[in-house]
Amino acid sequence: MNNSIIRYILGYVLKIETILLLFPCTVAVIYKENEGVYFLITACICGILGVLLTLKKPASFIFYLKEGSAATALSWIVISLFGALPFWLSGEIPLFTDALFETVSGFTTTGASILNDVEALSYCSLFWRSFTHWIGGMGVLVFLLAVIPLSGGSQINLMRAESPGPSVGKLVPKIKTTARLLYIIYFGMTILQIIFMLAGGTSLFDTLTITFGTAGTGGFGVKNDSIGGYSPYIQWVVAIFMILFGINFNVYYLLIYRKWRKALSIEEVHTYFMIIIISVTIIFLNIAKTAGSAADALRHSFFQVSTLITSTGFSTTDYDLWPQTAKTVLILIMFIGACAGSTGGGIKVSRIIILVKSIKKELGSYIHPKSIQKIKMDGKPVEHEILRATNVYFVAFTVIFALSVLAVSLDNKDFTSNFTAVLATMNNMGPGLAEAGPAQNFSSFGTFSKIVLMFDMLAGRLELFPLLILFHPGIWKELFTRIRKKLHKK
Amino acid sequence: MNNSIIRYILGYVLKIETILLLFPCTVAVIYKENEGVYFLITACICGILGVLLTLKKPASFIFYLKEGSAATALSWIVISLFGALPFWLSGEIPLFTDALFETVSGFTTTGASILNDVEALSYCSLFWRSFTHWIGGMGVLVFLLAVIPLSGGSQINLMRAESPGPSVGKLVPKIKTTARLLYIIYFGMTILQIIFMLAGGTSLFDTLTITFGTAGTGGFGVKNDSIGGYSPYIQWVVAIFMILFGINFNVYYLLIYRKWRKALSIEEVHTYFMIIIISVTIIFLNIAKTAGSAADALRHSFFQVSTLITSTGFSTTDYDLWPQTAKTVLILIMFIGACAGSTGGGIKVSRIIILVKSIKKELGSYIHPKSIQKIKMDGKPVEHEILRATNVYFVAFTVIFALSVLAVSLDNKDFTSNFTAVLATMNNMGPGLAEAGPAQNFSSFGTFSKIVLMFDMLAGRLELFPLLILFHPGIWKELFTRIRKKLHKK
Repeated sequence: MNNSIIRYILGYVLKIETILLLFPCTVAVIYKENEGVYFLITACICGILGVLLTLKKPASFIFYLKEGSAATALSWIVISLFGALPFWLSGEIPLFTDALFETVSGFTTTGASILNDVEALSYCSLFWRSFTHWIGGMGVLVFLLAVIPLSGGSQINLMRAESPGPSVGKLVPKIKTTARLLYIIYFGMTILQIIFMLAGGTSLFDTLTITFGTAGTGGFGVKNDSIGGYSPYIQWVVAIFMILFGINFNVYYLLIYRKWRKALSIEEVHTYFMIIIISVTIIFLNIAKTAGSAADALRHSFFQVSTLITSTGFSTTDYDLWPQTAKTVLILIMFIGACAGSTGGGIKVSRIIILVKSIKKELGSYIHPKSIQKIKMDGKPVEHEILRATNVYFVAFTVIFALSVLAVSLDNKDFTSNFTAVLATMNNMGPGLAEAGPAQNFSSFGTFSKIVLMFDMLAGRLELFPLLILFHPGIWKELFTRIRKKLHKK
Repeated sequence: MNNSIIRYILGYVLKIETILLLFPCTVAVIYKENEGVYFLITACICGILGVLLTLKKPASFIFYLKEGSAATALSWIVISLFGALPFWLSGEIPLFTDALFETVSGFTTTGASILNDVEALSYCSLFWRSFTHWIGGMGVLVFLLAVIPLSGGSQINLMRAESPGPSVGKLVPKIKTTARLLYIIYFGMTILQIIFMLAGGTSLFDTLTITFGTAGTGGFGVKNDSIGGYSPYIQWVVAIFMILFGINFNVYYLLIYRKWRKALSIEEVHTYFMIIIISVTIIFLNIAKTAGSAADALRHSFFQVSTLITSTGFSTTDYDLWPQTAKTVLILIMFIGACAGSTGGGIKVSRIIILVKSIKKELGSYIHPKSIQKIKMDGKPVEHEILRATNVYFVAFTVIFALSVLAVSLDNKDFTSNFTAVLATMNNMGPGLAEAGPAQNFSSFGTFSKIVLMFDMLAGRLELFPLLILFHPGIWKELFTRIRKKLHKK
């Protein structure tokens, strides 16, 4: 195992975090807030550590899926640990577990909060909280790939570990160019939303923070009622941009290069829109009687479907009070999630398509046992490897889900709260239902449950296996053998 | 498609039902109950129809998985439709939907009831209700295979559609002998339980009905508090026999032929017992404080684990009042279910083993990407076909589960009730939690929900695909083309 490359990548990630931490520092300067000091201190710590870890170049720049996955998982843990420091040092979030929960929730674009009163936070902290969403949305290692030189074939192993979806969508053959293109699209769309938000008369601070939360499909708001207090115009803008950020970024790439026909023919995107339309219709019919005007009912249904299918987690109303059918639709779309290759979470529409098609194929084999059928996607047969990976992903998802619900049940909350709390964290959603609902927060969960839910957030964002291999004895055995060898030499 | 063989099998099944209906008639004679007349009328109808349908021999005795599955699904629907008649005709269950729900629940060994007052039923109806469990436990087509002559290779297609588990466990090369052996073991164990029950001083009627419910892992009781009113001895006997009926019947076959070592080395059975021990321990610790004496706590934990992992659904206490961790463990073991090749329902332990091993294999491939690993079971590699079928089963299970929860949500009950109602019916359990809990019943669900839950019971018992193919247009297209051709000829 190539440990030195992992050290090197972690160092680089810390260097990047140093720069990122300077943004909330600037906000503190503008608003003349003392809390800025703690961001500066943390930036210094990250900077020093980053430099120390990257002083010695790694023995080899070649690494495999194993190192790529471990580096990714460790990077996310490390940026979360350091990202939590300012909240804790400033005393704005007194317990470190809580500060870490909030930060993990931020970077993984979950948006689940332990704060009872968001508005009590300083501007720089609010900014950092939302900024973590933006960073986590596209991924910190994808950013790293765009800026640092790593040897050719190995890069895909980092990209694979961090990119959502059953297969890695390389836009162009070169990983570095792909990573840059992704960030350019991401940046461009963020700017576009900022313009639309400002046009609606929102303050610059709210515009930036809400846009970060939308772009990363995160969901941290800066108001206690999330997006409920903003004008219907703003709510529509946010709802539409959430859906746009939940689309496979390949589509934007194709649009930029004017490959209209190919851009508009992606099966996953069609299904994604179909699910949205069906869900909005069902919920609209279900809540129409109680939601006041038809316009309100439509806006609330559309907003909540958009926020939950993309795993953002903003809300304009307390949907926990909706009738059960509407709530069940919301639970189902939480599982489904957004498109692969977007910033959204969940199981992903493409995986659902593959899985549903495998059922169809099975039924077909009962009727025509001798015909050999292949599952197709966008007209092309799905590789056996992807089918296998999708199945094993689904199984692992369910097993982790079940064990998490069991672990969280120790707090003795009701089943709906536990089930939706795990669902909301593992799919990087944010709020669930009942005691984990949009009008509640996660502060009522015990420390053990919070740790489990943090694990779920990371597992969801990294799509399980990169995080799980940290628990595989094989990884640690190799590490210890190396250390023992080194000690022997001395 | 060989339609005539399906007609022939259905006719034979109706003939068998005629004979089975004579048992409650006898009970009615003994207890001098007028309700017996309705069983006699139904028996006559079944008999006449059965004779008519089998008058003409089928054109060919050869049939494939398609016909086997369709015949199985239709048989189960037909026996349920006719089995419901006496309840409805006698007015003991006034609505036909309810009578059908109770009968489907009986044959599929679910044990979910719509009756508020079980004790108000006549003896012959109570007997029939429990007897359907016993019939459904081993399967009516397995019985058919044991008695009627069908051509060689085709029989496996009936067996496959009705037997639980990822692969068909043929005890001996000949299907007919296998079917007979299974029924002999089933019969022998039933007799054994009857002896143990009578030794505890239970009345013959209660002994028979409870034993039928145990053997088929059904769960209909004859008292309103299920098994709660019987002595601890009886509760232990029932609990232990439930576990025995949940073991793969291969084990008993091997024991009869004194292959001790092989019998005791089956991985699925080891895991099954391990899950039981772990679950009982967790629940015992969780309820120890509130359950009175330690002996009570142990008995209640053991009984409820035994009844829910085997999908029986008897209860000795209202576990809906237990703390959340205990309830969550119960939900998890409801999903897992019993061993393949037993009378129990659920996803089955062997499928869970295969699925968990596929996760382990995936993790291993991250660490050692070049080594080719095979999933093994009982020391032998699992065939690719079984792995594929297990995956697609799991996916189909989840999809039907999710859609059912959505459908049932129209009744506007809480999420826990809907979720566990679907869980309890699809896994052929009986009671769930909350409004579907052991102290409640399914009468509060609407007609649409009841139809959905009946579908789930049949889907669970037949392991999804045999029932699903009835909804495949391919099946009906062939049928209609044939009918059209016949009409053209005329």
